[in-house]
Amino acid sequence: MHEYRKDPIVNRWVIVCADRADRRGAFLEPTVWNDSAPCPFCEGHEEETPGEVLAYRQSEQSPNRPGWLVRVVPNKFPAVRATEEGVERDEPLFQSMPGVGAHEVVVESARHVSSFSDLSAEEALDVLTAYRRRLRYWKADSRMRSGIIFKNVGTAAGASLEHTHSQIIVLPMVPAALADELAGAKSYEQTNGCCFFCDMIAQERTIGERMIAESDRYVAIAPYASRLPLETWVLPKRHESHYENEPGKAIAELSIFLRQVITAIDDVGRRPAYNYLIHTAPFDTASATHYHWHIEIIPILSKTAGFEWASGYYVNPLPPEQAAEWLRTSYSQYGVGEKSSLE
Amino acid sequence: MHEYRKDPIVNRWVIVCADRADRRGAFLEPTVWNDSAPCPFCEGHEEETPGEVLAYRQSEQSPNRPGWLVRVVPNKFPAVRATEEGVERDEPLFQSMPGVGAHEVVVESARHVSSFSDLSAEEALDVLTAYRRRLRYWKADSRMRSGIIFKNVGTAAGASLEHTHSQIIVLPMVPAALADELAGAKSYEQTNGCCFFCDMIAQERTIGERMIAESDRYVAIAPYASRLPLETWVLPKRHESHYENEPGKAIAELSIFLRQVITAIDDVGRRPAYNYLIHTAPFDTASATHYHWHIEIIPILSKTAGFEWASGYYVNPLPPEQAAEWLRTSYSQYGVGEKSSLE
Repeated sequence: MHEYRKDPIVNRWVIVCADRADRRGAFLEPTVWNDSAPCPFCEGHEEETPGEVLAYRQSEQSPNRPGWLVRVVPNKFPAVRATEEGVERDEPLFQSMPGVGAHEVVVESARHVSSFSDLSAEEALDVLTAYRRRLRYWKADSRMRSGIIFKNVGTAAGASLEHTHSQIIVLPMVPAALADELAGAKSYEQTNGCCFFCDMIAQERTIGERMIAESDRYVAIAPYASRLPLETWVLPKRHESHYENEPGKAIAELSIFLRQVITAIDDVGRRPAYNYLIHTAPFDTASATHYHWHIEIIPILSKTAGFEWASGYYVNPLPPEQAAEWLRTSYSQYGVGEKSSLE
Repeated sequence: MHEYRKDPIVNRWVIVCADRADRRGAFLEPTVWNDSAPCPFCEGHEEETPGEVLAYRQSEQSPNRPGWLVRVVPNKFPAVRATEEGVERDEPLFQSMPGVGAHEVVVESARHVSSFSDLSAEEALDVLTAYRRRLRYWKADSRMRSGIIFKNVGTAAGASLEHTHSQIIVLPMVPAALADELAGAKSYEQTNGCCFFCDMIAQERTIGERMIAESDRYVAIAPYASRLPLETWVLPKRHESHYENEPGKAIAELSIFLRQVITAIDDVGRRPAYNYLIHTAPFDTASATHYHWHIEIIPILSKTAGFEWASGYYVNPLPPEQAAEWLRTSYSQYGVGEKSSLE
């Protein structure tokens, strides 16, 4: 099977070719961490990170001391900073500006575990609630235009520490990947009068072969033009453009659902390295009829290489229909079935 | 230093922040290959690859037998194929088409070496000549619209075999990354009446701080909005849109220059994993005044992660001015100085 598939929103072609999975090194081995240095994210090491900007604790305790469940701290090595006395370079042809923004780390557990699937129900809920709270906080800062939430697990996915954590980067602009999605979604709405993502969810639920799981409010699907093996998107069934508008009850349901979906990915992919990203509309719109927030989970089981750099396209050796079948089976075994034991 | 820099052609922002290089795991270790299986690219193993479509030999010998310098063979696990009896899927919302195209491998040496810098002068010349010949060959096939040439060295850059090789993928469309560049370059020409790349080369030669090296016909620069540490672009000084139009004398000079530049990268980056990509105009234009072919060399010294996936932006911990200084110094020691000993 060799097939070009086009992502209908960002017009990105993916080459799906199942037989390349046979070649040497096609699937990466899971990360083995050999880091003997003390972990700065473990309970008791609070002084090794900048002071917390948010923490969930079981009782009233002082900040930056043990006893927390989930902690949000500024990144010690930020890519961007809220205050920046930058020098703008002045060269013909080129444009630069100071690196204003914010870069925070969400330490997802006081325990030294490595995947979202290892979190307790309470930790998972606190993590997703922390995302919402920090997005709302930065949305009130008029210099900022969008918040990016992402998670790196395993060295192949870019993690430099094993201890499970995610990151929030807040930017004074709408980044290219989001701008492309917004433009594609706007164009679809102009042609069809409705939200592409709502239409896609309805179609995938009808067809069924790329469906992985669903709960009352959420679905998990293997996207039609999956870039990498086991790529999974989690979307709310009800139209909503902004993650931070999601009500508390929905966040609680999502925390259970997301953990179960990632448990299935960890099972099928043998605890692969992965990234997840929350795609959510920019701060300067209150709500958008054409955009639909969602989480993209991208296991790193094969390597991107020169072809992806040169073309902007991807070669995916695992058809999403096959990925969905495996994940669906695993989810039904370990997900819903073990819901009570996971909690 | 925290600075957003914009690539003027594709409008891609890069965050340059020097102090992130201090964090754990910021620079990757070189690949250590532990592959004990026999190498299918070594001399004497010709039967392990599909039959050659082109080979340079020192004397008249039969094809697919020892005695070659450089060999071009179809990829055993092609991402696309020249003939394809594909089934087009028919689903609302989604578009697919059969995976027509070509996927070839250039085995760059009969010896088991791992970088372009390890090639003999003759091998390097044969490799660059083979690229030109295969592009010319596929250009005559009316189904095809563009040829992508790239090289993966080291596991972090996506190589699945150590033995130095590069790849040619020929597509029935202009891929997204090239289309974006063409559009940006066209827009620059419409505004300024000339080629962006010609202007950039002139400016970089004047400013000097991002210049790495130059020969009679070529320059190597650290691009202003470098995505990753030690990123290096090699461009012809004279305007030319298509690599395959480059005359034989120029290709000969380029083979020496490129090998010296990669020797400097191997020196400064301690033989890092890297990709290189030849960006060249599509087949359906004979020549273009707005586009300028070039080689992008992308060492993989830091990992791309969730932020890059989510934003389409890059965080580069090494300012290109610093990269250029290191590479310039190395080039002047190992490059021009050792020109004769390299040959």
